[in-house]
Amino acid sequence: MGLLIVGSIGLDDIETPFDKVTNALGGSTTYISLAASYFSGPVSIVGVVGDDFPDEHLKMLEDHNVGLEGLQIVKGAQTFRYGCKYHYDLNVRDSLFTELNVFEKFNPIIPDKEKKSSFVILGNIAPQLQINVLDQLENPKFVVCDTMNFWIDRSKADLIKVLKRVNVLIINDSEARLLSNEPNLIKAAKMISEMGPKYLIIKKGEHGALLFGENTIFSAPAYPMENIFDPTGAGDAFAGGFTGYLHKNMEFSFENLKRAVVYGSVMASFCVEKFSTKGLENLSFLEIHNRYIEFRELSSFN
Amino acid sequence: MGLLIVGSIGLDDIETPFDKVTNALGGSTTYISLAASYFSGPVSIVGVVGDDFPDEHLKMLEDHNVGLEGLQIVKGAQTFRYGCKYHYDLNVRDSLFTELNVFEKFNPIIPDKEKKSSFVILGNIAPQLQINVLDQLENPKFVVCDTMNFWIDRSKADLIKVLKRVNVLIINDSEARLLSNEPNLIKAAKMISEMGPKYLIIKKGEHGALLFGENTIFSAPAYPMENIFDPTGAGDAFAGGFTGYLHKNMEFSFENLKRAVVYGSVMASFCVEKFSTKGLENLSFLEIHNRYIEFRELSSFN
Repeated sequence: MGLLIVGSIGLDDIETPFDKVTNALGGSTTYISLAASYFSGPVSIVGVVGDDFPDEHLKMLEDHNVGLEGLQIVKGAQTFRYGCKYHYDLNVRDSLFTELNVFEKFNPIIPDKEKKSSFVILGNIAPQLQINVLDQLENPKFVVCDTMNFWIDRSKADLIKVLKRVNVLIINDSEARLLSNEPNLIKAAKMISEMGPKYLIIKKGEHGALLFGENTIFSAPAYPMENIFDPTGAGDAFAGGFTGYLHKNMEFSFENLKRAVVYGSVMASFCVEKFSTKGLENLSFLEIHNRYIEFRELSSFN
Repeated sequence: MGLLIVGSIGLDDIETPFDKVTNALGGSTTYISLAASYFSGPVSIVGVVGDDFPDEHLKMLEDHNVGLEGLQIVKGAQTFRYGCKYHYDLNVRDSLFTELNVFEKFNPIIPDKEKKSSFVILGNIAPQLQINVLDQLENPKFVVCDTMNFWIDRSKADLIKVLKRVNVLIINDSEARLLSNEPNLIKAAKMISEMGPKYLIIKKGEHGALLFGENTIFSAPAYPMENIFDPTGAGDAFAGGFTGYLHKNMEFSFENLKRAVVYGSVMASFCVEKFSTKGLENLSFLEIHNRYIEFRELSSFN
């Protein structure tokens, strides 16, 4: 069965020290589905946009075999919009504006034919909505969850309910420290794993990612990048690549989860090479595979 | 021929959130020589202490086959002393006091029999003293250099002269950014490599280390540590393990340098498990080898 992705879809204004774009395609669902589309099919999304949402974006997603049956298009309403400006140190960004618009009252409705989805990615939305999605599904085999500081601060109780129902939680290092209230990442990971998820992935940006599970730790390197044009969506591209790879081969050994983490890192590295979703729109599987080999060469020793 | 180590030797007062020690053995030379002693012999040091320096420390070094012929003991004078306090986040420390004492006028004199040393580690001392050491040596085959922010700020011109004469520079990420004036580490590494050293190692603390050279990059993982008792000397233990391993097998392929980086990381991980030099005093090569295997398991995928 298919891979279902639920999260935000929006239009972004992004400024970095190198360039700026306005009205660019954004949102977690978008990045996740594009990254996953190179591995597996069918991929379907559930989300909401206004009728101002450009047709070209819908067409581009369809060209990547992303199923849009669960996309609500609200007439006479505006799409979610977000603007941010990255500093010279691209790890730091200022939010310039957030216009929730149709996203404010987003009520994810899973189409009947998607209710049997075996794989689900809960993008970064309110934990209560993530629960709502899980409640509509029949018996998902593998649930991957993202979240962020905002929800850890505001909706921790609901988030903890979600964590009991997911197989993998993907967060970054600062979110892991916040969620566990523990500065040491290894201790933090143990505490979060006890909250429910069998596997935990902690993304560390330019320092790679850690996978925790089965009393084992895997440390994945980061791709050495001289030019990061736009960090937006890197975490979502990671989640899409990670889950898409697992959905493709349906093999859940720790060894295969390690490979999935590296494929996630590969997709994140492509994502940040161009603005908006452009880095994920025109890849070949050969390019993806070759970068996977580069990751292996980067970190192998005997 | 032997491995020569030149740097500081001192007595430290160290406080962490977990414990504190006073008058503990410290100094870059001390940590480097202990870490290297598990790999190769003979290891010799050049440094200076006062006659207040406890005999037990000299005996402990001799028990590790560390040659002390180049150690100057100044009568009626005090040993270099340093005090610091680590925060709950062990990446942050406050210096409490620095008493240079005999170290203020340290003039490294290489004993005649050490002048033919094939391997040299220039510990973290003034670049002018590092040049002074190199000028006394006949024809060192492999020179490894450490430095710190203080010298990059104050003695950059001299440091750049040193860099033209070393095979490997070992620094941390903030020092690499400062030395190159470039925030992107990959770009910074290219700029520093152009200053002279054939190989550059950038240590990233809890995020591992990067080795640059021969147009290749190797990313070594960090050992997952739940309890770091005292970070003091970790960088020196790294330099000792790295260089000791190379000195032992005299093989300079990039593949072997990668192994040396991991052995450096292994020794740093042992170092921080106990206060002062205690973590480096009673190891067996089997323990060291086993931790090397753990590093490999931590980062391997296929």
